Amino acid sequence: MKKNNAITSRSEDMSKWYSEICVKAELMSYSKVKGFIVYRPYGYAIWEQIKNWLDNEFKKTGHQNVYMPSLIPESLLQKEKDHISGFAPECAVVTQGGGEELSEKLYVRPTSETLFCDHFKDILSSYRDLPIKYNQWCSVVRWEKTTRPFLRGSEFLWQEGHTLHRTSEEAREEALKMLEIYNRLGKEVLAIPFVTGKKTDKEKFAGAVETYTIEALMPDGQALQSGTTHYFGDGFARHYDISYLDSDNQLKTPYQTSWGVSTRLIGSIIMEHGDDNGLVLPPFVAPIQVVIIPIRANDSPEVMKKAHSIKEKLEEEGLRVLLDDSDKTPGWKYAQYEMKGVPLRIDVGPRDLEKNQVMVVRRFDEKKDFWDLDDKFYARVKDEMEVITKGMYNKAKEYVNSHIVEVHTYEELEDCILNHKGYAKMMWSGDVDTEDIVKQKLNATSRCIPFEQVPFGDEDPVTHKKAKYVVYFARSY
Amino acid sequence: MKKNNAITSRSEDMSKWYSEICVKAELMSYSKVKGFIVYRPYGYAIWEQIKNWLDNEFKKTGHQNVYMPSLIPESLLQKEKDHISGFAPECAVVTQGGGEELSEKLYVRPTSETLFCDHFKDILSSYRDLPIKYNQWCSVVRWEKTTRPFLRGSEFLWQEGHTLHRTSEEAREEALKMLEIYNRLGKEVLAIPFVTGKKTDKEKFAGAVETYTIEALMPDGQALQSGTTHYFGDGFARHYDISYLDSDNQLKTPYQTSWGVSTRLIGSIIMEHGDDNGLVLPPFVAPIQVVIIPIRANDSPEVMKKAHSIKEKLEEEGLRVLLDDSDKTPGWKYAQYEMKGVPLRIDVGPRDLEKNQVMVVRRFDEKKDFWDLDDKFYARVKDEMEVITKGMYNKAKEYVNSHIVEVHTYEELEDCILNHKGYAKMMWSGDVDTEDIVKQKLNATSRCIPFEQVPFGDEDPVTHKKAKYVVYFARSY
Repeated sequence: MKKNNAITSRSEDMSKWYSEICVKAELMSYSKVKGFIVYRPYGYAIWEQIKNWLDNEFKKTGHQNVYMPSLIPESLLQKEKDHISGFAPECAVVTQGGGEELSEKLYVRPTSETLFCDHFKDILSSYRDLPIKYNQWCSVVRWEKTTRPFLRGSEFLWQEGHTLHRTSEEAREEALKMLEIYNRLGKEVLAIPFVTGKKTDKEKFAGAVETYTIEALMPDGQALQSGTTHYFGDGFARHYDISYLDSDNQLKTPYQTSWGVSTRLIGSIIMEHGDDNGLVLPPFVAPIQVVIIPIRANDSPEVMKKAHSIKEKLEEEGLRVLLDDSDKTPGWKYAQYEMKGVPLRIDVGPRDLEKNQVMVVRRFDEKKDFWDLDDKFYARVKDEMEVITKGMYNKAKEYVNSHIVEVHTYEELEDCILNHKGYAKMMWSGDVDTEDIVKQKLNATSRCIPFEQVPFGDEDPVTHKKAKYVVYFARSY
Repeated sequence: MKKNNAITSRSEDMSKWYSEICVKAELMSYSKVKGFIVYRPYGYAIWEQIKNWLDNEFKKTGHQNVYMPSLIPESLLQKEKDHISGFAPECAVVTQGGGEELSEKLYVRPTSETLFCDHFKDILSSYRDLPIKYNQWCSVVRWEKTTRPFLRGSEFLWQEGHTLHRTSEEAREEALKMLEIYNRLGKEVLAIPFVTGKKTDKEKFAGAVETYTIEALMPDGQALQSGTTHYFGDGFARHYDISYLDSDNQLKTPYQTSWGVSTRLIGSIIMEHGDDNGLVLPPFVAPIQVVIIPIRANDSPEVMKKAHSIKEKLEEEGLRVLLDDSDKTPGWKYAQYEMKGVPLRIDVGPRDLEKNQVMVVRRFDEKKDFWDLDDKFYARVKDEMEVITKGMYNKAKEYVNSHIVEVHTYEELEDCILNHKGYAKMMWSGDVDTEDIVKQKLNATSRCIPFEQVPFGDEDPVTHKKAKYVVYFARSY
């Protein structure tokens, strides 16, 4: 049921709905430079919540934060050839500094593998130094022609982990462990069920041996790559001369990983959960978790007193609460906080107070209930955050489950992609020609080779070659 | 008493001592681009502590975090003339993006007033929107010829607050309130006593009406500007067309502030508190607050068991604890953690354990004591963090107090500056010619006009003009 006429219906035009919501919910605004946005308080606060959760997980698993320079000399970027050919074309380049032409171009970091490698070379000497597990919170710049707030921008905020290990097994395990942390972020915090798996060689990161991915499925059947972890083997380390003296007195090359998620996750949240009335925020990232609306406060002095007391007690429970005591009408306030995606609304009115109760309304499924204002009320509201997260997750999970389409022929593949049915789950030869054909004819890409491999055929329906893997194809953001 | 021969004595060569400590205590390392450093985990963790404390204070006082683009179009930077002439010469300039020459140069932000102004213009409409109180955590780039880790670099990390107010009084008050938060950061967290006051017109920020400052005094008698807050009046707002409809239906211009502290504070900490044996970190920013050293652990299984139990219980108190159970000698460990400035060391040895006690050694004044391992031990260690902070602050405060020299003649001014006696407190005409002469002849600058003005003469001893203000002169970093 659409109640907010100020925004385009999602069902009518998802792309327009998305852009309007970004601006009207005050998540961001556009800047004078194309593709560069202003992260406004309501949008940035979502990122802060994601950051706090992840930072805590990274530290618990023994990672340390560092900060590398924001500019990379051209000569340093050039040492790994796949890497520079992947990134150089989308870089912003500094050619002047301090009023003078520079003798060497400096690239604004699009990612920091090269800087970390150069630093690792300096600080690694003995096997005792390993593993080295670093993370960096920063912004990166990648020149983009077509941009959309949060989803694809010329500048975004992210974290990038970079680690060094003694064995390839340990490094690969690190890449998988970090993917699992991202996957848990989805389940426990963002209420987003990710499909996880390995990228194909065509889709993997420039310079990686293996790339693992978390993929979200949007309501229009398009996938959204939401985070990746990479196992580098010893490729970067060899190119950047990183070595250490092992316990057997031999000079050896360490194995390496990197991994990152970005403010693109805000885009995932908006599209995954939003509806015709606006944003629907998962409670643990919502800047405002509970909004309290006083009803007919002029009729009863008790209303405002109680509203303030509820706010205080909920804040003592550690919740982020807004009491809107402005002179706007309750109807206006309802629409406003629905649009802003506040997970729970509490209406405090004189008639309900007589019965010592309040009306509690959930944003994600519009469930309304009268709750008794007893001693357990405050803990119950806090517990409701978990209940809502699970409810949102299950709803999204059902959607994904019903949008994985097993395709056995090219026609079924085409039908799935062209009719926005979600992931086309297909048997694949493992050769790039299948991907090239699907890209060219259907504008879809392989999203991942899922970890769980249950084959359901012998032939790749696109090239008719012998099938090796189960793979997911989809169009993507 | 110097115990660590791996580093130059501070008394012998402060500059060399400083550079060595930065590298050997693993606070930073140099990158391939001059003036750009790597913030290593031990250095970055200090910044994280400062950041957490400030961020909490900013939020308590109603400020919200945002993130602005890292690149500024030339046309936007040019709108405020003092501002661009102050900053443009020290900027890094992007001239290429996505493989093409750009039609307009983009400046890597040296500070973000222009970006905030452009955004404020977009979002401010009514007096109901005021005040707007924003803060941003980011990195900035300012091309520097002579660089020193943390103190002066081409890139540094900082926060920049930007606020808009309805009245000039409220804006000026905001600038002073934020200065007081910085001053409290010094006293309560960094153990650094700042001298606070107003900058002269010559020394104020490019585009500000008034600049307020916190100045630290280093052991070599040189001042270190450690943070500033600016009252802009409505100058920027007029240049950038920021206006709002007031309650009287008139279109008005708001008043503005900005304020910032940076990773330069890490440099302040190193120089302010360090000694011949290395770093001395104030407890509330120390990445390791307590180090536990097991003594003759091979002689008694009790030692390691107790050391682990002490570590766990101190961590339960919220302390950051390291237990070094490596096979290095206690002597090596003592020197190592002294060099790294760990505030408190606990030696756990078999003979002391028989008496149910441990040896506790403070880093800043080398005070040693036997402490009973009773129930109160753990809370006592926690309380000691506060005791040490106060002790370090008082020691530094005594130094500053004894290095403010009242000068009545040019000869006394010269003696104070040339013989590194600290601040020269002088009566001043208020005219820039005094500052020009002092700069040219003594290479010193006015640090501030202290808030407390107790005149002690009628004449400016440099120009012999009538004196108006008490001012502090010093050489500075």
